[in-house]
Amino acid sequence: MGARSLVVLLFLMFILSFSSAYQGKKKQYKPCKQMVLYFHDVLYNGQNAANATSAIVGAPQWGNLTILADKFHFGDVVVFDDPITLDNNFHSKPVGRAQGMYIYDTKNTFTAWLGFTFVLNSTDFQGTLNFMGADPIIVKTRDITVVSGTGDFFMHRGIATIMTDAFEGEVYFRLRVDIKLYECW
Amino acid sequence: MGARSLVVLLFLMFILSFSSAYQGKKKQYKPCKQMVLYFHDVLYNGQNAANATSAIVGAPQWGNLTILADKFHFGDVVVFDDPITLDNNFHSKPVGRAQGMYIYDTKNTFTAWLGFTFVLNSTDFQGTLNFMGADPIIVKTRDITVVSGTGDFFMHRGIATIMTDAFEGEVYFRLRVDIKLYECW
Amino acid sequence: MGARSLVVLLFLMFILSFSSAYQGKKKQYKPCKQMVLYFHDVLYNGQNAANATSAIVGAPQWGNLTILADKFHFGDVVVFDDPITLDNNFHSKPVGRAQGMYIYDTKNTFTAWLGFTFVLNSTDFQGTLNFMGADPIIVKTRDITVVSGTGDFFMHRGIATIMTDAFEGEVYFRLRVDIKLYECW
Repeated sequence: MGARSLVVLLFLMFILSFSSAYQGKKKQYKPCKQMVLYFHDVLYNGQNAANATSAIVGAPQWGNLTILADKFHFGDVVVFDDPITLDNNFHSKPVGRAQGMYIYDTKNTFTAWLGFTFVLNSTDFQGTLNFMGADPIIVKTRDITVVSGTGDFFMHRGIATIMTDAFEGEVYFRLRVDIKLYECW
Repeated sequence: MGARSLVVLLFLMFILSFSSAYQGKKKQYKPCKQMVLYFHDVLYNGQNAANATSAIVGAPQWGNLTILADKFHFGDVVVFDDPITLDNNFHSKPVGRAQGMYIYDTKNTFTAWLGFTFVLNSTDFQGTLNFMGADPIIVKTRDITVVSGTGDFFMHRGIATIMTDAFEGEVYFRLRVDIKLYECW
Repeated sequence: MGARSLVVLLFLMFILSFSSAYQGKKKQYKPCKQMVLYFHDVLYNGQNAANATSAIVGAPQWGNLTILADKFHFGDVVVFDDPITLDNNFHSKPVGRAQGMYIYDTKNTFTAWLGFTFVLNSTDFQGTLNFMGADPIIVKTRDITVVSGTGDFFMHRGIATIMTDAFEGEVYFRLRVDIKLYECW
């Protein structure tokens, strides 16, 4: 990332850091289930095969498969299998895996499109939750949707508010996911 | 209930069963929200980097990243960030962005698989809608699904009827999206 | 796939073959619609262009577009347009097409992430069903979700229990899909 993109990024982060996205003027419903989970993504960069939990598998013409592309990574498709933990510690015992993909999809800022599943396998939860939505990455908190579930989450739906809890260069990030289910069966 | 009322009831049942059959076999539900929007896709072809709103990021072995592949583009994966407008004019002020991907997925005709989000940010709507479905492109109108939403569209679901409103070679197309939401919260 | 991965795979298949994934301790709801369908996937390998119904369109740095990648195919993105049949015979008259993608997404076992649509066009059913979820391939039966539908399946939701009904090398597999819809309109 060049110095100029960095300035743009910092400016955008400043503007947006106090706001939250896509939360609007909704009625206040009460969740029927609620939980907070973290997941951890280590992107393959050609040298970290043992530790990587994700890899670039599609890229635009100007990109490649070991470095995130120019133009705010527009077009990079990343497949992941990330550990899910109950707290923000990468080394905590995982309670499941976040599996699916994210796609960087804007040329002039950092946004991603997410399609993935939480496969939960802990004493508290056995089942899956499926997530879908647009992620305006540099906004502090942003809402994506829980479109379906299985097992303990059979037919559930809801909203997940995500926050970038840590971001280290272009190799590691950690998301905090505040899941609120409003349709429970 | 007397015999006469029973005859009247049976007669009404006969009339009603005939009329609902005439309407086709699905019930007629009334949308709780409805809107028509357009979005505009300009595909990167190696020479239009400034204007392109989408790019090929995956392709089959016989394809590449600047020209849609042979065999009805089968296997081409396109990531997009397209402006959404209230009318069919590419230059109208956008009310949001359509972000996500489409995948050409048939070898002997034009069909696509769609996974994307409308990120709406206008005076009328603040929120997102998530779309998923199969798009048999050459059919005049085709239904995909609205699986979820956030903000003003919190927990909403519905159907989107899409039409190809313009198609210019392999660089530009415009879709008309008639959104009917049947589950509103 | 090396001999060692094969041993690991066989061991995992043994351990898991009697279990089912993600079904948990859910309440017993009764489906409002139910059906069993099969679909058939023939993966393009560089030499079967005429018969192939799917193709690798994205791969990690260590992969390519005609052979599934090492590390349990982690990162391979496959686009498909597979015939759907009422029984397990590849040559039966199709009642529709399964269209979309699967993504291998684990480095140390076989799992996939699925996003696809059943486009049904038979005397029994006219409409589409959209599927999403994590598929722990080597588990005998596993639940994914039906997130939405159109036509005869307008606004429907449910669960699909999938089983690998046949698996021939890395070219052909057949899935049995037991669809149970719990929300019908």
